[in-house]
Amino acid sequence: MTGTPESLRDLEHFILGHIPLARAMELQVAASDSDMLALDAPLAPNVNDKGCAFGGSLTCLMTLAGWSLVELALRRHGIDCDIYVADSDVRYLAPVWTDFRAEARLAPGSSWTSFLATLAARGKARLETQVSVRERDGSTVAATLRARFVAKRTPPPAG
Amino acid sequence: MTGTPESLRDLEHFILGHIPLARAMELQVAASDSDMLALDAPLAPNVNDKGCAFGGSLTCLMTLAGWSLVELALRRHGIDCDIYVADSDVRYLAPVWTDFRAEARLAPGSSWTSFLATLAARGKARLETQVSVRERDGSTVAATLRARFVAKRTPPPAG
Repeated sequence: MTGTPESLRDLEHFILGHIPLARAMELQVAASDSDMLALDAPLAPNVNDKGCAFGGSLTCLMTLAGWSLVELALRRHGIDCDIYVADSDVRYLAPVWTDFRAEARLAPGSSWTSFLATLAARGKARLETQVSVRERDGSTVAATLRARFVAKRTPPPAG
Repeated sequence: MTGTPESLRDLEHFILGHIPLARAMELQVAASDSDMLALDAPLAPNVNDKGCAFGGSLTCLMTLAGWSLVELALRRHGIDCDIYVADSDVRYLAPVWTDFRAEARLAPGSSWTSFLATLAARGKARLETQVSVRERDGSTVAATLRARFVAKRTPPPAG
Protein backbone atom coordinates (compact mmCIF):
# COMPACT_ATOMS: atom_id res chain seq x y z
CA MET A 1 0.00 0.00 0.00
CA THR A 2 3.03 2.31 -0.02
CA GLY A 3 2.93 4.87 -2.82
CA THR A 4 5.94 4.64 -5.09
CA PRO A 5 7.29 7.91 -6.51
CA GLU A 6 5.99 6.78 -9.91
CA SER A 7 2.45 6.14 -8.67
CA LEU A 8 2.37 9.46 -6.79
CA ARG A 9 3.62 11.32 -9.86
CA ASP A 10 1.07 9.50 -12.03
CA LEU A 11 -1.70 10.46 -9.62
CA GLU A 12 -0.58 14.10 -9.53
CA HIS A 13 -0.41 14.17 -13.33
CA PHE A 14 -3.93 12.70 -13.51
CA ILE A 15 -5.39 15.20 -11.02
CA LEU A 16 -3.69 18.25 -12.56
CA GLY A 17 -4.62 17.08 -16.04
CA HIS A 18 -8.32 16.58 -15.28
CA ILE A 19 -9.24 19.11 -12.57
CA PRO A 20 -8.47 22.73 -13.53
CA LEU A 21 -9.15 23.93 -9.98
CA ALA A 22 -6.41 21.63 -8.68
CA ARG A 23 -4.01 23.34 -11.12
CA ALA A 24 -5.20 26.75 -9.90
CA MET A 25 -4.51 25.62 -6.31
CA GLU A 26 -1.01 24.37 -7.35
CA LEU A 27 -1.75 21.05 -5.67
CA GLN A 28 1.09 18.55 -5.19
CA VAL A 29 0.80 14.88 -4.26
CA ALA A 30 3.31 14.87 -1.39
CA ALA A 31 3.46 11.45 0.22
CA SER A 32 1.67 8.21 0.88
CA ASP A 33 2.28 5.20 3.08
CA SER A 34 0.34 2.13 4.10
CA ASP A 35 -2.68 4.07 5.39
CA MET A 36 -2.16 7.77 4.58
CA LEU A 37 -2.06 10.06 1.57
CA ALA A 38 -0.86 13.70 1.78
CA LEU A 39 -1.47 16.61 -0.60
CA ASP A 40 0.30 19.96 -0.36
CA ALA A 41 -0.75 23.44 -1.50
CA PRO A 42 0.99 26.80 -1.27
CA LEU A 43 -0.78 29.70 0.47
CA ALA A 44 -0.50 32.34 -2.29
CA PRO A 45 -3.01 30.93 -4.82
CA ASN A 46 -5.31 29.84 -1.98
CA VAL A 47 -5.53 33.02 0.04
CA ASN A 48 -8.71 34.86 1.11
CA ASP A 49 -9.64 38.47 1.85
CA LYS A 50 -8.04 38.21 5.33
CA GLY A 51 -4.68 36.97 4.00
CA CYS A 52 -5.03 33.44 5.39
CA ALA A 53 -6.12 30.33 3.49
CA PHE A 54 -9.59 30.41 1.94
CA GLY A 55 -11.91 27.85 3.58
CA GLY A 56 -12.95 26.63 0.14
CA SER A 57 -9.32 25.85 -0.70
CA LEU A 58 -8.91 23.88 2.53
CA THR A 59 -12.04 21.88 1.74
CA CYS A 60 -11.00 21.31 -1.88
CA LEU A 61 -7.60 19.98 -0.78
CA MET A 62 -9.13 17.79 1.93
CA THR A 63 -11.76 16.41 -0.46
CA LEU A 64 -9.10 15.65 -3.07
CA ALA A 65 -6.90 14.01 -0.42
CA GLY A 66 -9.73 11.64 0.55
CA TRP A 67 -10.52 10.98 -3.11
CA SER A 68 -6.82 10.33 -3.85
CA LEU A 69 -6.50 7.87 -0.97
CA VAL A 70 -9.29 5.77 -2.51
CA GLU A 71 -8.12 6.26 -6.11
CA LEU A 72 -4.54 5.19 -5.34
CA ALA A 73 -5.66 2.10 -3.41
CA LEU A 74 -7.89 1.00 -6.30
CA ARG A 75 -5.12 1.63 -8.84
CA ARG A 76 -2.80 -0.60 -6.81
CA HIS A 77 -5.40 -3.35 -6.96
CA GLY A 78 -5.82 -2.81 -10.71
CA ILE A 79 -9.50 -1.89 -10.31
CA ASP A 80 -10.98 0.78 -12.63
CA CYS A 81 -13.62 2.84 -10.83
CA ASP A 82 -15.26 6.22 -10.92
CA ILE A 83 -15.06 7.65 -7.41
CA TYR A 84 -17.55 10.27 -6.24
CA VAL A 85 -17.73 12.18 -2.98
CA ALA A 86 -21.16 11.58 -1.40
CA ASP A 87 -21.11 13.83 1.66
CA SER A 88 -18.72 15.56 4.03
CA ASP A 89 -18.57 17.37 7.34
CA VAL A 90 -15.97 20.10 7.70
CA ARG A 91 -14.69 21.85 10.82
CA TYR A 92 -12.53 24.96 10.47
CA LEU A 93 -10.51 25.16 13.67
CA ALA A 94 -7.80 27.78 13.13
CA PRO A 95 -6.69 30.15 10.37
CA VAL A 96 -3.87 28.92 8.11
CA TRP A 97 -1.14 31.49 7.47
CA THR A 98 1.42 29.31 5.62
CA ASP A 99 1.54 26.67 2.91
CA PHE A 100 -0.48 23.70 4.09
CA ARG A 101 -0.85 19.92 3.89
CA ALA A 102 -3.94 17.71 3.94
CA GLU A 103 -3.49 14.14 5.22
CA ALA A 104 -6.19 11.56 4.49
CA ARG A 105 -6.76 8.24 6.27
CA LEU A 106 -9.58 5.75 6.52
CA ALA A 107 -12.12 6.75 9.15
CA PRO A 108 -12.49 4.44 12.16
CA GLY A 109 -14.93 1.68 11.24
CA SER A 110 -13.99 1.67 7.54
CA SER A 111 -11.78 -1.08 6.15
CA TRP A 112 -10.19 -1.75 2.78
CA THR A 113 -11.04 -5.44 3.11
CA SER A 114 -14.80 -4.97 3.37
CA PHE A 115 -14.74 -2.11 0.82
CA LEU A 116 -12.98 -4.30 -1.77
CA ALA A 117 -15.21 -7.29 -1.01
CA THR A 118 -18.38 -5.21 -1.49
CA LEU A 119 -16.96 -3.69 -4.67
CA ALA A 120 -16.19 -7.17 -6.06
CA ALA A 121 -19.66 -8.47 -5.15
CA ARG A 122 -21.80 -5.50 -6.16
CA GLY A 123 -19.68 -3.33 -8.46
CA LYS A 124 -20.20 -0.42 -6.05
CA ALA A 125 -19.05 0.32 -2.51
CA ARG A 126 -18.77 3.15 0.03
CA LEU A 127 -15.84 4.15 2.18
CA GLU A 128 -15.41 6.85 4.81
CA THR A 129 -12.24 8.90 5.10
CA GLN A 130 -11.00 11.44 7.63
CA VAL A 131 -8.71 14.25 6.58
CA SER A 132 -6.89 16.97 8.49
CA VAL A 133 -5.08 20.13 7.38
CA ARG A 134 -1.99 21.47 9.12
CA GLU A 135 0.24 24.46 8.52
CA ARG A 136 3.76 23.91 7.16
CA ASP A 137 5.28 23.43 10.63
CA GLY A 138 2.71 20.73 11.33
CA SER A 139 1.98 21.79 14.88
CA THR A 140 -1.76 22.41 14.89
CA VAL A 141 -4.73 20.83 13.13
CA ALA A 142 -6.37 23.78 11.34
CA ALA A 143 -9.31 21.98 9.71
CA THR A 144 -10.81 18.51 9.57
CA LEU A 145 -13.10 16.77 7.11
CA ARG A 146 -14.93 13.47 7.22
CA ALA A 147 -16.12 12.42 3.80
CA ARG A 148 -17.80 9.36 2.35
CA PHE A 149 -16.88 8.28 -1.16
CA VAL A 150 -18.71 5.95 -3.53
CA ALA A 151 -16.69 3.86 -5.99
CA LYS A 152 -18.42 2.38 -9.04
CA ARG A 153 -16.71 -0.17 -11.29
CA THR A 154 -16.13 1.22 -14.75
CA PRO A 155 -17.72 -1.04 -17.40
CA PRO A 156 -15.11 -2.75 -19.60
CA PRO A 157 -14.78 -1.28 -23.12
CA ALA A 158 -17.41 -2.67 -25.53
CA GLY A 159 -16.47 -4.98 -28.41
CA MET B 1 -32.09 43.88 1.91
CA THR B 2 -32.33 43.82 -1.88
CA GLY B 3 -28.94 43.91 -3.59
CA THR B 4 -28.55 46.81 -5.97
CA PRO B 5 -26.54 46.20 -9.14
CA GLU B 6 -23.84 48.46 -7.66
CA SER B 7 -23.59 46.52 -4.40
CA LEU B 8 -23.52 43.18 -6.25
CA ARG B 9 -20.80 44.45 -8.60
CA ASP B 10 -18.84 45.81 -5.63
CA LEU B 11 -19.11 42.45 -3.88
CA GLU B 12 -18.01 40.56 -7.02
CA HIS B 13 -15.08 42.94 -7.45
CA PHE B 14 -14.09 42.40 -3.80
CA ILE B 15 -14.29 38.59 -4.03
CA LEU B 16 -12.44 38.35 -7.35
CA GLY B 17 -9.83 40.83 -6.12
CA HIS B 18 -9.08 39.00 -2.87
CA ILE B 19 -9.66 35.29 -3.52
CA PRO B 20 -7.60 33.91 -6.44
CA LEU B 21 -9.55 30.63 -6.40
CA ALA B 22 -12.79 32.55 -7.04
CA ARG B 23 -11.12 34.04 -10.14
CA ALA B 24 -10.03 30.56 -11.24
CA MET B 25 -13.64 29.39 -10.83
CA GLU B 26 -14.87 32.41 -12.87
CA LEU B 27 -17.37 33.18 -10.10
CA GLN B 28 -20.11 35.75 -10.77
CA VAL B 29 -22.38 37.40 -8.21
CA ALA B 30 -25.70 36.77 -9.97
CA ALA B 31 -28.58 38.04 -7.85
CA SER B 32 -29.79 38.91 -4.40
CA ASP B 33 -33.14 39.75 -2.86
CA SER B 34 -34.50 40.20 0.63
CA ASP B 35 -33.35 36.80 1.87
CA MET B 36 -31.26 35.17 -0.87
CA LEU B 37 -27.91 35.60 -2.59
CA ALA B 38 -26.94 33.69 -5.76
CA LEU B 39 -23.50 33.01 -7.24
CA ASP B 40 -22.92 31.52 -10.70
CA ALA B 41 -20.01 29.51 -12.09
CA PRO B 42 -19.40 27.99 -15.52
CA LEU B 43 -18.69 24.27 -15.82
CA ALA B 44 -15.44 24.41 -17.85
CA PRO B 45 -13.03 25.73 -15.18
CA ASN B 46 -14.78 23.63 -12.51
CA VAL B 47 -14.82 20.23 -14.19
CA ASN B 48 -13.46 16.96 -12.73
CA ASP B 49 -12.03 13.75 -14.20
CA LYS B 50 -15.55 12.51 -15.04
CA GLY B 51 -16.48 15.63 -17.02
CA CYS B 52 -19.02 16.89 -14.45
CA ALA B 53 -18.49 19.56 -11.81
CA PHE B 54 -15.75 18.90 -9.24
CA GLY B 55 -17.21 18.48 -5.75
CA GLY B 56 -14.63 20.92 -4.40
CA SER B 57 -15.88 23.59 -6.81
CA LEU B 58 -19.48 23.04 -5.70
CA THR B 59 -18.43 23.39 -2.06
CA CYS B 60 -16.30 26.48 -2.77
CA LEU B 61 -19.21 28.18 -4.54
CA MET B 62 -21.68 27.22 -1.79
CA THR B 63 -19.31 28.39 0.95
CA LEU B 64 -18.74 31.70 -0.84
CA ALA B 65 -22.49 32.13 -1.37
CA GLY B 66 -23.12 31.76 2.37
CA TRP B 67 -20.23 34.09 3.15
CA SER B 68 -21.50 36.64 0.61
CA LEU B 69 -25.02 36.58 2.07
CA VAL B 70 -23.57 37.61 5.45
CA GLU B 71 -21.03 40.07 4.00
CA LEU B 72 -23.64 41.89 1.90
CA ALA B 73 -26.07 42.18 4.83
CA LEU B 74 -23.35 43.65 7.06
CA ARG B 75 -22.27 46.09 4.32
CA ARG B 76 -25.86 47.31 4.03
CA HIS B 77 -25.86 47.97 7.76
CA GLY B 78 -22.50 49.76 7.49
CA ILE B 79 -20.83 47.26 9.83
CA ASP B 80 -17.18 46.30 9.17
CA CYS B 81 -16.51 42.67 10.09
CA ASP B 82 -14.22 39.81 9.26
CA ILE B 83 -16.41 36.82 8.46
CA TYR B 84 -15.08 33.28 8.86
CA VAL B 85 -16.69 29.95 8.06
CA ALA B 86 -16.74 27.82 11.23
CA ASP B 87 -18.13 24.49 10.01
CA SER B 88 -20.23 23.01 7.24
CA ASP B 89 -22.07 19.86 6.24
CA VAL B 90 -22.21 19.07 2.52
CA ARG B 91 -24.40 16.60 0.65
CA TYR B 92 -23.63 15.79 -2.98
CA LEU B 93 -26.92 14.59 -4.48
CA ALA B 94 -26.46 14.49 -8.26
CA PRO B 95 -23.70 15.17 -10.79
CA VAL B 96 -23.70 18.64 -12.38
CA TRP B 97 -23.21 18.62 -16.17
CA THR B 98 -23.83 22.31 -16.95
CA ASP B 99 -22.96 25.74 -15.59
CA PHE B 100 -24.37 25.99 -12.08
CA ARG B 101 -25.77 28.38 -9.47
CA ALA B 102 -25.49 28.38 -5.67
CA GLU B 103 -28.31 30.07 -3.73
CA ALA B 104 -27.74 30.95 -0.07
CA ARG B 105 -30.40 31.74 2.55
CA LEU B 106 -30.51 31.91 6.32
CA ALA B 107 -31.05 28.50 7.87
CA PRO B 108 -34.28 27.95 9.81
CA GLY B 109 -33.76 29.19 13.36
CA SER B 110 -31.29 31.92 12.36
CA SER B 111 -32.38 35.55 12.23
CA TRP B 112 -30.72 38.77 11.17
CA THR B 113 -32.27 40.55 14.16
CA SER B 114 -30.66 38.38 16.82
CA PHE B 115 -27.38 38.15 14.84
CA LEU B 116 -27.10 41.94 14.62
CA ALA B 117 -28.10 42.39 18.28
CA THR B 118 -25.43 39.91 19.43
CA LEU B 119 -22.85 41.54 17.16
CA ALA B 120 -23.65 44.98 18.62
CA ALA B 121 -23.48 43.68 22.20
CA ARG B 122 -20.44 41.43 21.98
CA GLY B 123 -18.56 42.41 18.82
CA LYS B 124 -18.91 38.82 17.60
CA ALA B 125 -21.85 36.68 16.47
CA ARG B 126 -22.67 33.43 14.68
CA LEU B 127 -25.16 32.79 11.92
CA GLU B 128 -26.19 29.62 10.09
CA THR B 129 -26.84 29.56 6.34
CA GLN B 130 -28.19 26.93 3.99
CA VAL B 131 -27.08 26.81 0.38
CA SER B 132 -28.12 24.70 -2.60
CA VAL B 133 -26.60 24.19 -6.05
CA ARG B 134 -28.68 23.65 -9.17
CA GLU B 135 -27.79 23.11 -12.80
CA ARG B 136 -28.48 25.87 -15.31
CA ASP B 137 -32.06 24.73 -15.98
CA GLY B 138 -32.73 24.87 -12.24
CA SER B 139 -34.73 21.66 -12.09
CA THR B 140 -32.85 19.57 -9.53
CA VAL B 141 -30.92 20.32 -6.36
CA ALA B 142 -27.49 18.79 -7.03
CA ALA B 143 -25.78 19.63 -3.71
CA THR B 144 -26.59 21.26 -0.41
CA LEU B 145 -24.49 22.87 2.30
CA ARG B 146 -25.28 24.08 5.79
CA ALA B 147 -22.58 26.35 7.13
CA ARG B 148 -22.10 28.45 10.23
CA PHE B 149 -20.25 31.72 9.95
CA VAL B 150 -18.65 33.86 12.64
CA ALA B 151 -18.54 37.63 12.19
CA LYS B 152 -16.08 39.67 14.24
CA ARG B 153 -16.19 43.46 14.34
CA THR B 154 -13.09 44.98 12.77
CA PRO B 155 -11.35 47.33 15.23
CA PRO B 156 -11.53 50.98 14.10
CA PRO B 157 -8.26 52.37 12.71
CA ALA B 158 -5.90 53.53 15.43
CA GLY B 159 -5.15 57.24 15.98
